[in-house]
Amino acid sequence: MSGMSSTPDDRRFVLTLGCPDRPGIIARITSFIADFGGSIVEAGYHSDLETGWFFTRQAIKAATVPFDLDELRERFTTVAADLGPETDWQVHDSGERRRAVLLVSKDGHCLHDLLGRAASGELPATIEAVIGNHPDLAGMTEAHGIKFHYIPFPKDPAERGPAFEQMRELVDAHDPHAVVLARFMQVLPAELCEHWAGKAINIHHSFLPSFVGARPYHQAFARGVKLIGATCHYVTAELDAGPILEQDVTRIDHADTVRDMVRQGRDIERVVLARGLRWHLEGRVLVHGRRTVVFE
Amino acid sequence: MSGMSSTPDDRRFVLTLGCPDRPGIIARITSFIADFGGSIVEAGYHSDLETGWFFTRQAIKAATVPFDLDELRERFTTVAADLGPETDWQVHDSGERRRAVLLVSKDGHCLHDLLGRAASGELPATIEAVIGNHPDLAGMTEAHGIKFHYIPFPKDPAERGPAFEQMRELVDAHDPHAVVLARFMQVLPAELCEHWAGKAINIHHSFLPSFVGARPYHQAFARGVKLIGATCHYVTAELDAGPILEQDVTRIDHADTVRDMVRQGRDIERVVLARGLRWHLEGRVLVHGRRTVVFE
Amino acid sequence: MSGMSSTPDDRRFVLTLGCPDRPGIIARITSFIADFGGSIVEAGYHSDLETGWFFTRQAIKAATVPFDLDELRERFTTVAADLGPETDWQVHDSGERRRAVLLVSKDGHCLHDLLGRAASGELPATIEAVIGNHPDLAGMTEAHGIKFHYIPFPKDPAERGPAFEQMRELVDAHDPHAVVLARFMQVLPAELCEHWAGKAINIHHSFLPSFVGARPYHQAFARGVKLIGATCHYVTAELDAGPILEQDVTRIDHADTVRDMVRQGRDIERVVLARGLRWHLEGRVLVHGRRTVVFE
Amino acid sequence: MSGMSSTPDDRRFVLTLGCPDRPGIIARITSFIADFGGSIVEAGYHSDLETGWFFTRQAIKAATVPFDLDELRERFTTVAADLGPETDWQVHDSGERRRAVLLVSKDGHCLHDLLGRAASGELPATIEAVIGNHPDLAGMTEAHGIKFHYIPFPKDPAERGPAFEQMRELVDAHDPHAVVLARFMQVLPAELCEHWAGKAINIHHSFLPSFVGARPYHQAFARGVKLIGATCHYVTAELDAGPILEQDVTRIDHADTVRDMVRQGRDIERVVLARGLRWHLEGRVLVHGRRTVVFE
Repeated sequence: MSGMSSTPDDRRFVLTLGCPDRPGIIARITSFIADFGGSIVEAGYHSDLETGWFFTRQAIKAATVPFDLDELRERFTTVAADLGPETDWQVHDSGERRRAVLLVSKDGHCLHDLLGRAASGELPATIEAVIGNHPDLAGMTEAHGIKFHYIPFPKDPAERGPAFEQMRELVDAHDPHAVVLARFMQVLPAELCEHWAGKAINIHHSFLPSFVGARPYHQAFARGVKLIGATCHYVTAELDAGPILEQDVTRIDHADTVRDMVRQGRDIERVVLARGLRWHLEGRVLVHGRRTVVFE
Repeated sequence: MSGMSSTPDDRRFVLTLGCPDRPGIIARITSFIADFGGSIVEAGYHSDLETGWFFTRQAIKAATVPFDLDELRERFTTVAADLGPETDWQVHDSGERRRAVLLVSKDGHCLHDLLGRAASGELPATIEAVIGNHPDLAGMTEAHGIKFHYIPFPKDPAERGPAFEQMRELVDAHDPHAVVLARFMQVLPAELCEHWAGKAINIHHSFLPSFVGARPYHQAFARGVKLIGATCHYVTAELDAGPILEQDVTRIDHADTVRDMVRQGRDIERVVLARGLRWHLEGRVLVHGRRTVVFE
Repeated sequence: MSGMSSTPDDRRFVLTLGCPDRPGIIARITSFIADFGGSIVEAGYHSDLETGWFFTRQAIKAATVPFDLDELRERFTTVAADLGPETDWQVHDSGERRRAVLLVSKDGHCLHDLLGRAASGELPATIEAVIGNHPDLAGMTEAHGIKFHYIPFPKDPAERGPAFEQMRELVDAHDPHAVVLARFMQVLPAELCEHWAGKAINIHHSFLPSFVGARPYHQAFARGVKLIGATCHYVTAELDAGPILEQDVTRIDHADTVRDMVRQGRDIERVVLARGLRWHLEGRVLVHGRRTVVFE
Repeated sequence: MSGMSSTPDDRRFVLTLGCPDRPGIIARITSFIADFGGSIVEAGYHSDLETGWFFTRQAIKAATVPFDLDELRERFTTVAADLGPETDWQVHDSGERRRAVLLVSKDGHCLHDLLGRAASGELPATIEAVIGNHPDLAGMTEAHGIKFHYIPFPKDPAERGPAFEQMRELVDAHDPHAVVLARFMQVLPAELCEHWAGKAINIHHSFLPSFVGARPYHQAFARGVKLIGATCHYVTAELDAGPILEQDVTRIDHADTVRDMVRQGRDIERVVLARGLRWHLEGRVLVHGRRTVVFE
C-alpha cells in the first residue's frame, strides 16, 4: 500500500484561482512563483470563452517555497489584487490532511467503499464521523474505528427540523472540508444547502439531468434506456440540480430487471462518488455558476 | 471487403415472435424447427418478468429448410395459433435485400457514414433514395449513384403539409423497411409517425431522456454534464419519446465548447444510428410498449 | 439491501451444457423441461460456428419443477445421453449458497470490495476463509467475522512447496466453488493449477494479453498506452494465459504517473473481478479451450 | 456545417515546446507572450517527473499578436535559448491549412471516413492525394475531387523497392504534414519510416501492444478477449511499436465471430484514426521517446 502514501517530497502548496480573463494573468502568477524559485509540478489553465472567465490550479512543490503557507498567502494577496476585485482564490497545503463527514441511510455500498479507500490511503481525507438516519451501518463504520451517530428521522417531513439541526451541529463540530451524502436519500433543507454550499457532495443514481428525484432506476427501466449512470454533484437547494463534479454510465440491456440495474448501478455510484470526492478534496474543482472546471 | 459480403451459406430465415409467456413455448417453437431438420444458428430468448411477455428471435440456416419462405410461414401459423391470439410474429429471408429511404437536412455526417457502409456491404439494406429539405447533400448522395429528392419546406410550419405529403409519396413508392431520419431536424406530423410506425428511425443528438428537443448540445453545455450522448429511437408522435434502439456516450470536460461537443457528438451519432439501423434491418429489435428487446 | 436478497420465488435450477452442435438440441432440452411443466426464466444459447460446438444455460424456476434436484439430474441423464458422449453438463440449485476461499497478499482493495459485496448480499457466495502470505489483511478480514489464515512464504521460490501444500489443505477443507486470487501476487505451482482447474480465478492488473507478468502498470507506462485495464481469468499452468471471464479498461493520459495508474487501475480490478466471480458462481461461464462462453 | 468552419477570429499561433524542466519556464514563456499583449486561449503544461522533461502547448489568439509568424518565431528564439540547448520548439499558424497524403489498400472504411470529415470541414487539413497499392478505392477518392495514384506492388516483398520509391516521390511532392496509413496493410521499409519520422501515422486494428502484426482480429478471437481495440501510432522501423497517439476499445462477447469483430472494429478504427490525426495536425502531440504528450 506504500505506493499510495505521500512522502514529504510530495507535499505541495496548491493555488486555485478564478478571475475575469485578460492577457498576462498566467505570466503574472507564474512570475510570482518563479521569483521565489517555486517549482510547479502540476498546472491547469482554462479560459472560458463563453463567460470570459479564467481559471487556474497550480501545485507548487512545497520544498521549493522558502516560506510557510501563511506568508505565501500574504504575498499572493498583491497578485490577486492586480487581477481585479472579482478574483476568487485560495491556497492549501496538500500535507494538511483534510476532513470529511459522511451522511448515510441504509444502503452501505458507498460507505463501505469510502471506508476501504480511507483505510488504504487512497482517500486524501480522514473520515471524521458517519451520521445515519438509520442505525444499520453503525457496525460497518465502527469496525473501522470511526464514530457513528444515529439520528432518527420522524416520518413526517414537516417534523424533521430538529433532526437536521442536530445533524448540522454534529457535522460542523468537525469543520469538515467535505460533507458527503453517501446515498443519504434525504433532501437537505434549503438552509443546510446554503450553509454547506461548496462542500456538500451528493451521489445521485442516475445520469443527470435524466431521472431526477426518487427511484431513478425504476424510471430508467420504464423509459427503456440502454445505459444507466450516476452523477456526483454539489448539493444546492434545487433537487439534483447542483454543479456536476463527475458522471459515468454502464451498459444495460432488455434482460436487466430493475434489481439488476440497482446492482450494476452500484459499481458506477461507488467510483463516481470516489472520483468526485477526491477531486474536491485535492482542490481540483472550481465552480462557476452551474458548471465545474475540474483540473484532473 | 469480401469478408463482409454474405455467401449463399449465410442465408437465414429469421423468425421473430412475441407472446404472453407460459411454459413450453420454446419447446413448441424449437420442436417445430427440429421436426423439419432446421439448424438454428442464432437464438435469442427473453422472458420479461415485469410484463409477463415472452420474446424470441431464431435464425435458421436457410439451406436446412426443405421448403420456401411462404411455406415456412404457412406451417408456422399453426404454432403461432397455439401460442395464443396475442402472438405477434414474422419471418423474413436474410437473403432478400432490405430497402431504406433516408431523410436529411444540411448536416451530412450521418448520411455520409451510411453511404459508406452501404458501399462497403456493411449495411444490410440498399439505400433506395435520399430526400432533403435542403439541396446541400444532393452531390454527396448522387456521387454514390443514389437518387436525391429536394423538397423545399416553407418557413411557416403550418404550411408544410404539402411538403410532408410529397415526402410521404416519395418514401412509400419504395415500400421501405426503414425510413431513416439521418439528422433530418424536422418534427414529423403525427399522422406520418403513425403511418411509418415501427420503421421510422431517428438519431437524436443527446442521451435521452436528457435534452429533448432543439439544440441539445447547448443544453448539455449549460447544464455542465461530463458526458454527451446520442440516441437512436423509433419515431412516435411524442417528440423524442419513442422506444430506444441504442444509445452511447462520450466523455467531455470543461474545456470543450459547444462546437467541440458538436464535433465529438458526431462520432457517437454516426455509430449509434448505424448500430440501431442494422439491428432493425436484421430483425433484431422487438418493440413492447416503450421498451425494446434487442437480440444483438 | 433487501432488494438484493433472493426470495424463495427466485430459486432456480440452473442447467449448463456443452455438446457437439446438431439440429434438434434445443427442442430436445426444452421439450424435456416443458414435459414436466418447468418454466424457463432465463435462457442462453450459443452455437460456435468455428468449433461446431453448442452451449446453453437454462434457469428453470424451481417452484415449477415437481421433483428435487437429484431427480432432475437423474432424469436429465437420458437427454444428455441422446446428445452424445462428449456432452458436458451440470445442474445446480441457485438456492444453495456457494462457497469461496480468497487468497491474498498485502494489497487489500479487492479483498475489501468482495467483503463488502458479501456483507450486502451482492456476492452469490459465502466467503469461507481468507488465506494470506502476509498478515496485513487479517484485521480487515476478521472484522467481517471471517477466518484469516496467515501462511508465511519463504523468500526462495524453490522452498515454497510446503507453504503451497498447507494452502491446498486449508482451501480444500472448504470444498469451495471458487478459489479467488484477489491480488495474491504469487504464481501457483502447476499441480495446484491443475488441481483447482476451472475454479481458481485470478485478477491480473492489465488488459491481457498485453503486459503479462510482473509490474504491468510499469510496463504500460513505459509503452505509453492510452488505456489501462484488468483481466479476470481462470488460472492455468501457463502464466496469465487462462480463459478470460471478463476485462475492462479505463482511460489514462500522459499526466498519469505509474502511481496514478495503480490508483485508477484498482477501480477496474475491483469491478472486473467481482463481475467475473459472480458469473462463475452463478454458472454463467462455460469454458471451451482457451475461450469462455458467458451467459450474462 | 458552418459551426465547424473557422472564423478569422479563431486564428491562432500555436507554440509547442519541450525542454528539460526547471523552475521559471512557464513564467519565462508567458511573460514573453504577455509583453506583446498576446491572449492565450488554450494552454497545456506537463512536467514529466520520470524524465525531468517539461512540455507545453500554447494557443495565442492571432489577432492579439502585433507582428507576423516569422517575427514571432524570431523573437521567441531568445526565449528558447534561455531554456537550454536541448529545447525543441515550433510555432505554427492555425489559419494555414495543413496537408495530408493518404496511403490505402483495399479496405475503404477509414478512407471514406476521412474524406467525409474533410468534406465537412472537420479535418484540419486538405487531403492532397491518395495512393493505393490496389486500384479499388480510386472511384471513392475521385468522387471527392481528389487525385488517386495507383502503384501496383509486386508479390515478392524483395522486389517492392521501386514501388516504395515511387510512393515516396509522390508523397514528398506534396510536402505533407501527415502521411496517413489508412489501413495500408504494408510494412514501410525502415528508410521510409526514418524519412517520414514524426509524420507517418498508422491505424492498427488492435489494442497494442496486444496482437502486433497480421490478422489481429483472428488473434483476438483465438485468445478469447472480451474487448477489441484499435491504436493510432507514429510509424517507426519496429513494427507496430511507435509512439501511440490514441487508442480505444469496444466490447465483444462469445457470440461475435471474427467477421463480427472486423465489423465492430471498423467503428473503432475510424474514430481512433480521426482523433489521432486531428491532434497531430493541430500540433497537440509532442513525442518523447516512446511516449506521447497529447494536449487535447
